[in-house]
Amino acid sequence: MEDLSRDDSINTLRVLVATDCHLGYMEKDEVRRFDSFQAFEEICSIAEEKKVDFLLLGGDLFHENKPSRSALVKAIEILRRYCLNDQPVQFQVVSDQTVNFANIFGHVNYEDPHFNVGLPVFSIHGNHDDPAGVDNLSAIDILSACNLVNYFGKMVLGGSGVGQITLFPILIRKGSTSVALYGLGNIRDERLNRMFQTPHAVQWIRPEAQDGCDVPDWFNILVLHQNRIKTNPKNAINEHFLPRFLDFIVWGHEHECLVDPQEVSGMGFHITQPGSSVATSLIEGEAKPKHVLLLEIKGGQYRPTKIPLKSVRPFEYAEVVLKDEADIDPNDQASVLEHLDKVVRSLIDKASKKAIGRSELKLPLVRIKVDYSGFMTINPQRFGQKYVGKVANPQDILIFSKVTKKHSSTAE
Amino acid sequence: MEDLSRDDSINTLRVLVATDCHLGYMEKDEVRRFDSFQAFEEICSIAEEKKVDFLLLGGDLFHENKPSRSALVKAIEILRRYCLNDQPVQFQVVSDQTVNFANIFGHVNYEDPHFNVGLPVFSIHGNHDDPAGVDNLSAIDILSACNLVNYFGKMVLGGSGVGQITLFPILIRKGSTSVALYGLGNIRDERLNRMFQTPHAVQWIRPEAQDGCDVPDWFNILVLHQNRIKTNPKNAINEHFLPRFLDFIVWGHEHECLVDPQEVSGMGFHITQPGSSVATSLIEGEAKPKHVLLLEIKGGQYRPTKIPLKSVRPFEYAEVVLKDEADIDPNDQASVLEHLDKVVRSLIDKASKKAIGRSELKLPLVRIKVDYSGFMTINPQRFGQKYVGKVANPQDILIFSKVTKKHSSTAE
Ligand SMILES: [Mn+2]
Ligand SMILES: [Mn+2]
Ligand SMILES: [Mn+2]
Ligand SMILES: [Mn+2]
Repeated sequence: MEDLSRDDSINTLRVLVATDCHLGYMEKDEVRRFDSFQAFEEICSIAEEKKVDFLLLGGDLFHENKPSRSALVKAIEILRRYCLNDQPVQFQVVSDQTVNFANIFGHVNYEDPHFNVGLPVFSIHGNHDDPAGVDNLSAIDILSACNLVNYFGKMVLGGSGVGQITLFPILIRKGSTSVALYGLGNIRDERLNRMFQTPHAVQWIRPEAQDGCDVPDWFNILVLHQNRIKTNPKNAINEHFLPRFLDFIVWGHEHECLVDPQEVSGMGFHITQPGSSVATSLIEGEAKPKHVLLLEIKGGQYRPTKIPLKSVRPFEYAEVVLKDEADIDPNDQASVLEHLDKVVRSLIDKASKKAIGRSELKLPLVRIKVDYSGFMTINPQRFGQKYVGKVANPQDILIFSKVTKKHSSTAE
Repeated sequence: MEDLSRDDSINTLRVLVATDCHLGYMEKDEVRRFDSFQAFEEICSIAEEKKVDFLLLGGDLFHENKPSRSALVKAIEILRRYCLNDQPVQFQVVSDQTVNFANIFGHVNYEDPHFNVGLPVFSIHGNHDDPAGVDNLSAIDILSACNLVNYFGKMVLGGSGVGQITLFPILIRKGSTSVALYGLGNIRDERLNRMFQTPHAVQWIRPEAQDGCDVPDWFNILVLHQNRIKTNPKNAINEHFLPRFLDFIVWGHEHECLVDPQEVSGMGFHITQPGSSVATSLIEGEAKPKHVLLLEIKGGQYRPTKIPLKSVRPFEYAEVVLKDEADIDPNDQASVLEHLDKVVRSLIDKASKKAIGRSELKLPLVRIKVDYSGFMTINPQRFGQKYVGKVANPQDILIFSKVTKKHSSTAE
């Protein structure tokens, strides 16, 4: 699909894909309290600017299972400002909406006659905003009750033993394009793993043939929120467990941005991993530039376009092996401090150069992973004091380790 | 105002007044978990049936400062079902709405073009749902962000010392009737008391003369949420502190239903105290039948009509002085238990007789205050065991005291 002509627009479904916005993350930090909200607002503004049909979120919209009043109010305000407007919604949901959306209203939000929804949002839950408590409600259920988000992929774990889940897709039609959207909100990896290995424990409902659209014509998307890195196979989901009829997968939970769709060999589908829109751990994977994905689907073809997030706080990461540095004398702690100070300053400098042209200059996050083999550790709080007002995280710039190069998980 | 003819309807503002709904109260109790929601839903259904212009709430809409996800979702669901509809809103808010409503949208909810609000709700906060935290938000701010409630009466305590507050009324016009609605969300009684006694600390903004409505023509209502009973004058608000230009006062916080407007001698205003819609303490005052008030205002006159709440769980209260009972032998505990059992049975019986004609038969709340002077106490849990399935509160039917007839406060 090299070119989408204007005539194609009535048949092309345009979806903005993002995940792990972690609204409310660091909301009590003087410097970083608005970061998660600003990134989410930028995502919504991109959706508006690109005139997408809907925004698709892959879980962990909220950082806390019980968001504060402040996080809820800010989330609602952003959604209300971007999602309610007079833009016409140009796709239809043709599946049984009472099955897709587990709230008492039982319909997709833009069909409610009492709201002007112009930008529908669809979201699954993650492990941070998973359903819990007496009514098994997620924080996303609050947004769903407000009619601001279409919450899907909430599974009823029926059956005995490992349990049984059934995935009913949201069936979406826009002109000649038909998309089956499967959602699977976070389930403990170990359990979901066992389910995938238990016959009939995971049931995928395929759309029935409808007028003008046979089963093979549906473009099948899955959104899930699980560990992907296979350091410990029990605690991650193997991509090869997923059914081959799927065409495209949105992988939430992994915070590293690997937004360009990667083909999974032998499976016939591609995976996008948009990564979080706010860094919740200061590891290398989170230091990569953050993006969201514009996904344009026409018939069985799609075009992915990655879009950088500009509001995200700069984050520079470096690793230092003290014993490899020529200017450090193991018997002279001042030389260690001097070296690390140089590294911090160069990272601050690097961040500020990248920020040229941005409207708002944000203090950068700076993290140095220090291999201190053969050296004494340094108190990170004390080290950071002189960077107050220069970096966003003076208290934890340094992290000490004796094994560098070990891969850290970006799953949150 | 003996008769409201049909011709008067365009000039008559009709308000349903309720307070202290305490949504989420006892939400983990197997038997009583839905009580607060059912009463609130009944209030909304009365508003719908009576076709009032708006619903006015006097605080403590939520029982908890941080309501559970479940309480929030249920509250939003009820409001969405009753408040969003195609009914025309037939009054205008003519004051500066950005001053009246402290959310980022800054307008009365039915004027938002993206929502179909047919039943506006106006609410102040109480002490249970008071603003707190870094952004000074109340749980009602969440409902306000959703555009389901018009939250007013949130004061900025400016100035030094005791502080200074300014009350800007919501100015409401319906035909020839003009109402100035003042809201004062809960402030600690002691502080508010001091403010009332400090010159200029409480500023009442009077409406300016507008075309066709001079200042004296406004009907002035105040909604507040404070202690009213004057056992300790420091911890309650004296009615005589309120300004004489007020015509009508809605007093929240006191849970006893004293809904019929009482005149305050020498002040020229009447006070209605609707009381809570759910009993949150099992004291005599809460055992009285619960009501809400239909307030019809035309020009400077009003007609109050009390409306009983039918969904409220029956609550029967009695006091027993053991030494006064002829059939009790102080040396025979069995005779005490037998007597109390008789009282419980008679109260259950009384409750079930009152319930005749109600659609749903609810287990009653039963409370006996036992003056045990000269006797041993009984374990209330053990005593209640045989009433499981017969009363709603088997664990705390009995409460022991040595001083009967002491007045208990109904303020919550
Ligand atoms: Mn996650
Ligand atoms: Mn996450
Ligand atoms: Mn109260
Ligand atoms: Mn109360």
